[in-house]
Amino acid sequence: MRLMLVAGTTRTAERSGLSAAGATRDLLLHTPSADAEILTYGDTVRAPVTPVSPTGCPTPAAVTRAVRELLGFDATVVNGGLARPTGAPTVSMGAAPGRDIGEVDPVQTAPGAFAAARQFGRALPNEELVVGETIPGGTTTAMAVLRALGEEWSTSSSLPEDPVELKEAVVAEAFESSEIEPGRAAHAPELAVRFVGDPVLAVASGLVAGALEAETEVVLAGGTQMLAVAALVRHAGVVGPLTLATTAYLADDVPELADATAAHDVDLVVTDPGFGGEDAGPLSAYADGVAKEGAAMGGALHLADRAGRLDEVTTATLDVLARLRSDDGP
Amino acid sequence: MRLMLVAGTTRTAERSGLSAAGATRDLLLHTPSADAEILTYGDTVRAPVTPVSPTGCPTPAAVTRAVRELLGFDATVVNGGLARPTGAPTVSMGAAPGRDIGEVDPVQTAPGAFAAARQFGRALPNEELVVGETIPGGTTTAMAVLRALGEEWSTSSSLPEDPVELKEAVVAEAFESSEIEPGRAAHAPELAVRFVGDPVLAVASGLVAGALEAETEVVLAGGTQMLAVAALVRHAGVVGPLTLATTAYLADDVPELADATAAHDVDLVVTDPGFGGEDAGPLSAYADGVAKEGAAMGGALHLADRAGRLDEVTTATLDVLARLRSDDGP
Repeated sequence: MRLMLVAGTTRTAERSGLSAAGATRDLLLHTPSADAEILTYGDTVRAPVTPVSPTGCPTPAAVTRAVRELLGFDATVVNGGLARPTGAPTVSMGAAPGRDIGEVDPVQTAPGAFAAARQFGRALPNEELVVGETIPGGTTTAMAVLRALGEEWSTSSSLPEDPVELKEAVVAEAFESSEIEPGRAAHAPELAVRFVGDPVLAVASGLVAGALEAETEVVLAGGTQMLAVAALVRHAGVVGPLTLATTAYLADDVPELADATAAHDVDLVVTDPGFGGEDAGPLSAYADGVAKEGAAMGGALHLADRAGRLDEVTTATLDVLARLRSDDGP
Repeated sequence: MRLMLVAGTTRTAERSGLSAAGATRDLLLHTPSADAEILTYGDTVRAPVTPVSPTGCPTPAAVTRAVRELLGFDATVVNGGLARPTGAPTVSMGAAPGRDIGEVDPVQTAPGAFAAARQFGRALPNEELVVGETIPGGTTTAMAVLRALGEEWSTSSSLPEDPVELKEAVVAEAFESSEIEPGRAAHAPELAVRFVGDPVLAVASGLVAGALEAETEVVLAGGTQMLAVAALVRHAGVVGPLTLATTAYLADDVPELADATAAHDVDLVVTDPGFGGEDAGPLSAYADGVAKEGAAMGGALHLADRAGRLDEVTTATLDVLARLRSDDGP
């Protein structure tokens, strides 16, 4: 088993009010680079800060790292368009940072990155891959991509109050500026990603498509962005068993998730880490609906549960956070 | 503990008769990219072949991978100037492939890469780092760098018959074309690397210098190239405990290794994997003096020995090689 974290950026995230994946707008683009370091080292190395939401909710990457420390699995970061330096080792697929989807042709590297990731996914020797993402603003681009594919499933948000109207307006703007219309990319998933998506969707869907073609078991670790990945893979004509592993917080927020996964022949696994308990410290923000998912957290919780060690995750995550805080200094 | 493999290239390797780190001259530049994949995945992913010497001796990266599978430690590949694609995740230090040291100013990225690696080495949270290299032709550039520092220690070779005269001629050519003379870079190690060295030496010595400054324990995993790294670190004025862990094959080839390490305040640990036994298959080439060391093999053997599992390394390596061969296929 290997966990693959596809880390990248879209400048769509810099529109205010769209994402909780950073304390301020200026810091948002650092989040995927920092998440990659936290997964790899349990610490930031080149990134200037540990990512938190505007209200201080810690990044889900800390949970994924904690599970990795408990279980000891391999993890690999794939560059899905990072815009800031990272000290984590990354595999390149030729993906550049995504431009705002209100601009014309915002993800020109999408078809090439999809193809490179597909070939890479086919060549990996692992029998099972767990694939997750970290990209602020990613639920908005995922919503646009689902629309381009002709699908109307709603997406989640890292904010406790989903800014649905703002997201709808951004998606409408994306279609106005692009060469495609909703539903017109049903048979050309790379074009959906190129014209209204983000580079992480291109890399993740290529990776999953290639892995399935090599008969590798794939767990999609995440929420509605990984659902968009499943849709892209199916629209690319790739069959094979897929599981979506997400958190209870995400599943509670998207009641139609069971129908949406079933519609794409994807099994759904929901895991509750119990961050609502008294001993959860800053993780209790998750129980209040902040962040909900991200950085493969849902997949990591599924792995912890499968190993019978889910009850150790809260303590292990608080330990990771304590080490992260000791660095950031006073 | 984390094993760091610095992987890169110098076109010096393309001079015929200088290196055994590839079956043919055309394949030499792929070796570090393939070694990085073997360490990471136990398999090649993007590299076209599994590296072997011209006589078929398997790459030492297979040994390092085997020990990693036995012990389960983290490993990170640092890009020290790769010239061919790799599917392994790598951390960038801004190092470009090294040009032939017969050319003027062959490693222009050396000072920048040294500085970036030093900062990275300071920031890593691990308490112990094991640092190795993979760069065909690297013993020749190491010889030139030692001379630039004013040191006359002899270097080893991946070939069973060390082509000493050829290497001396290349080193002489390097000094003819460069702005420095032997001994003149004693207080400017980055310049020794820039004018007569290779990018792996720049990155590895920066990484080790930074780690020592952060009071991280450092094991240099390798032979005379890692001795050159120790010399560069000491000439940079960086103190702190260093150990050089190498193979018995390398130590047998360089009788003055004990004196050379002592001269730089470096402890020496020599480990014999016993590849001369009847069950060693293609690994018996090591007992005949081919390859000897590389891709952190000596450090990995030291780790296996420290864990009391050295006697499992031969079988584990043959298992890695069987998986690698099954891919290359007819």
